[in-house]
Amino acid sequence: MNQHSAPSGKIKHALSVSREADFAAWYQEVIAEADTVEESGVRGCMVIKPWGYGIWERIQQIMDARIKEAGVQNCYFPLFIPLSYFAKEAEHVEGFAKEMAVVTHHRLIGDGKGGLVPDPDAKLEEPLVVRPTSETVIGAAMSRWVQSWRDLPLLTNQWANVVRWEMRTRMFLRTSEFLWQEGHTAHADRSDAMDETLRALEMYRSFAEDVLAMPVIAGEKPENERFPGAVATYSIEAMMQDGKALQAGTSHYLGTGFAEAAGIRYQDKEGTQQICHTTSWGVSTRLIGGVIMTHGDDDGLRVPPAIAPQQIVILPMLRDDDGDAALLTYCEELRAALAKQIALGERTRVLLDKRPGKATQKRWAWVKKGAPLILEIGGRDATGGQVSVLRRDRLWREDGKVNFAAMARDGFLERASAELEDIQRSLHAEATGRRDANIERGVSTLDGLAEYFAENKRYPGWVELGWSRPTGAALEEVVAKLKALKLTIRNTALNAPAPGGTCPFTGAPAVETITVARSY
Amino acid sequence: MNQHSAPSGKIKHALSVSREADFAAWYQEVIAEADTVEESGVRGCMVIKPWGYGIWERIQQIMDARIKEAGVQNCYFPLFIPLSYFAKEAEHVEGFAKEMAVVTHHRLIGDGKGGLVPDPDAKLEEPLVVRPTSETVIGAAMSRWVQSWRDLPLLTNQWANVVRWEMRTRMFLRTSEFLWQEGHTAHADRSDAMDETLRALEMYRSFAEDVLAMPVIAGEKPENERFPGAVATYSIEAMMQDGKALQAGTSHYLGTGFAEAAGIRYQDKEGTQQICHTTSWGVSTRLIGGVIMTHGDDDGLRVPPAIAPQQIVILPMLRDDDGDAALLTYCEELRAALAKQIALGERTRVLLDKRPGKATQKRWAWVKKGAPLILEIGGRDATGGQVSVLRRDRLWREDGKVNFAAMARDGFLERASAELEDIQRSLHAEATGRRDANIERGVSTLDGLAEYFAENKRYPGWVELGWSRPTGAALEEVVAKLKALKLTIRNTALNAPAPGGTCPFTGAPAVETITVARSY
Repeated sequence: MNQHSAPSGKIKHALSVSREADFAAWYQEVIAEADTVEESGVRGCMVIKPWGYGIWERIQQIMDARIKEAGVQNCYFPLFIPLSYFAKEAEHVEGFAKEMAVVTHHRLIGDGKGGLVPDPDAKLEEPLVVRPTSETVIGAAMSRWVQSWRDLPLLTNQWANVVRWEMRTRMFLRTSEFLWQEGHTAHADRSDAMDETLRALEMYRSFAEDVLAMPVIAGEKPENERFPGAVATYSIEAMMQDGKALQAGTSHYLGTGFAEAAGIRYQDKEGTQQICHTTSWGVSTRLIGGVIMTHGDDDGLRVPPAIAPQQIVILPMLRDDDGDAALLTYCEELRAALAKQIALGERTRVLLDKRPGKATQKRWAWVKKGAPLILEIGGRDATGGQVSVLRRDRLWREDGKVNFAAMARDGFLERASAELEDIQRSLHAEATGRRDANIERGVSTLDGLAEYFAENKRYPGWVELGWSRPTGAALEEVVAKLKALKLTIRNTALNAPAPGGTCPFTGAPAVETITVARSY
Repeated sequence: MNQHSAPSGKIKHALSVSREADFAAWYQEVIAEADTVEESGVRGCMVIKPWGYGIWERIQQIMDARIKEAGVQNCYFPLFIPLSYFAKEAEHVEGFAKEMAVVTHHRLIGDGKGGLVPDPDAKLEEPLVVRPTSETVIGAAMSRWVQSWRDLPLLTNQWANVVRWEMRTRMFLRTSEFLWQEGHTAHADRSDAMDETLRALEMYRSFAEDVLAMPVIAGEKPENERFPGAVATYSIEAMMQDGKALQAGTSHYLGTGFAEAAGIRYQDKEGTQQICHTTSWGVSTRLIGGVIMTHGDDDGLRVPPAIAPQQIVILPMLRDDDGDAALLTYCEELRAALAKQIALGERTRVLLDKRPGKATQKRWAWVKKGAPLILEIGGRDATGGQVSVLRRDRLWREDGKVNFAAMARDGFLERASAELEDIQRSLHAEATGRRDANIERGVSTLDGLAEYFAENKRYPGWVELGWSRPTGAALEEVVAKLKALKLTIRNTALNAPAPGGTCPFTGAPAVETITVARSY
């Protein structure tokens, strides 16, 4: 474990489980203690709480602006998809997934025993599937909207909930219902569609790095990991603090297969009917899980300032006496002054937390939520024009005490924006350093892989190696061998240098570099 | 029909059906021609197209800011609600609605004939209902979140899709799936919950007036129109251009019934367990239907600038020759200059529409969509520093020509913001004038009502009259009499003066004023 600071013996961390001791249990604790999400009592479905949903709103807002900037227009398509649409897809798509929620009735009726049952008289003629993704229903709309070359490219996106019936669920990472955006585009030819596929991938890569402070490798998935029916699938892959990979976003070049099935055709400038090339791309609430497992520490979550619902939290140390009024006035003026500032290109988000409760309890609640800057203001601070500032990413002093810094109010006002920007950079640098330190490039045989991951059970990280890019049955063999080691091929980095040597799986000359890892 | 301007003989309107000739057919035409929404091919579900969805995004953005300003926090709750939650509700709620989409299976399987069917081996033990509204599932979360008086008030909201199985659907107005926000709050006592109920109502009233430019009457629904289980239901009611009322938002004081069913209790300052009082309130994509039927005219939609996805559209009159480059530069500079301005408190939204196509075709497309200001720029305008401006709300000149005004570019830049603000005001004034002119206050008997609505088939408007506020069986009788005339009681305006005279239904003294109307 690449601990971020401080000799740990002296420190009493805010969480009861450390990442080192039990990463899975730590994750459960941090999502609960940071007030982000909880099990809903409905199988595999989340209740996303205000702090977690606030992070999602920030992700949505910034991503949506970038999507629109690329000329993509938001629409909304139906939640329900008739069964027959999927039958068409099942026909042409190998590996078609079948775990979906199926609506079969449209009315409830009393069961005569005080309960309710689906009314047998209200059975749907054609069952409806709750969308797991919307290629089919959006394809049907595109076939109506695209007539001529003038209508292309057709660039659409929707923000929506989708449902995939998952056997084992984990909040944010794999849930039956999740929130996402799905971009769907139609193009005149392969080249234009491929450009869009890679544009979306690059949008995700830079978003992950700049906004989430989460370093990723953008690259192409191997054939066996393609979206069913896609010609090429690309992903961004992030390394979590247990060394596992998280696929954090995908972009697919779908070729003409989906357009054929949906009938998305256009008349070109010469008057000839042509088939469209389509793409789709998406990121989801899974990103929040990625942020937690990238930036969380043994004291809770650390939210990068760019997506923190509140970047600065002001805690007045109220004493239920006559001094409170002046203290609150001082804090409110501080809040107002900070709220006028610009950090990371936007107005600073500041909360004055006046709720009842003990100041230290409130401090630790905000530490666990991961607010980037926490200010504690007492009566003497107010009188003396001081503030007491805690950077969440530098929580502990060497001596094991909480790292509050007292400073003049005006001095803090001058540097608050720079401080937030520095936290954003620091979190990114820390995660990038950890990621880079944990990519192994010295393994070049299957035995070597087995050994490496056997030795490094706790923090295995990733292995980068050259391979011969086998396909079909030869690839299946490689996948099976890796699966026996609980490993998967993540992707082929777009910018990876050509490898030397031979492929450890096939013995043929290596032609490209892949990343191999355990994964979520 | 309260036509907005111009002697109609000379004018060739952009739509083929007028409001006067057939309001329902006009509505169908305007939603299609304005590119707002279309039938999805999935029963009663919408495909909301970019222009329609853009209006919804504007509504969301402004409403969301007002919701947050009131201290309400956004969350996200599950799409699916276990059947047993509804059984609990069905027990305590009379008039419990049963038309819902029911999920009974979680997997598809081949039927052996190339099709797919729900897998009989994947039948859910407990069916799941697709949320028609979320009182039950949010109540369950609130019962976990509320422990002490310190947790109150608990103010939550979610933006979500909901499903109600509707027999007859009409795009935006009544659809099986729709988008909405639903606020859910828990309070320590009746007074605090009632304050919140009325705060939400006032938020909706001012939003409708200021943002949608849609005048409404805010008031209490009669007992028979209450949300099932509510103690009091309030609504805003808007008059459409066919004189019918549209319920455009509701706010419910739920008393303690829902809290009892869900177990939302708190310990008060004295340490005693108390039951919470709850509220819920919502507006939906139905608002877009209201905007269309309030502001649309025989040339299409007119979008109030506050919610127009694009407020100013610049159409360069391209000629596919050497002059195009200079023309585009001129237009781009104009766009950039306008985009820096502030109108209605926000940056102006300006589109330079460079898509291929004839300028007049594009003009009429934007007229039908209802962009508030349309600029046509030809080569000579560019050379002479001119612009040609069309206000969508003053489309025709007296002589039947399109009402373009030529003016100096700089002069237009100076007044563009004021022009947008004037359009916002004008639309509101026009709709308010029409609404006020069509409220009849001279009817005081049931026969009078029958006569009034029989006479005025085409534009009946509303009748305001005093009544004795009967309840129970006496109210049912009134409702039945009105139903025979295809009329309903809309609400009792909050600010209505106490009426004189006797109740036309019961003969008892009138105690409050109600609005009676046909409705959507």
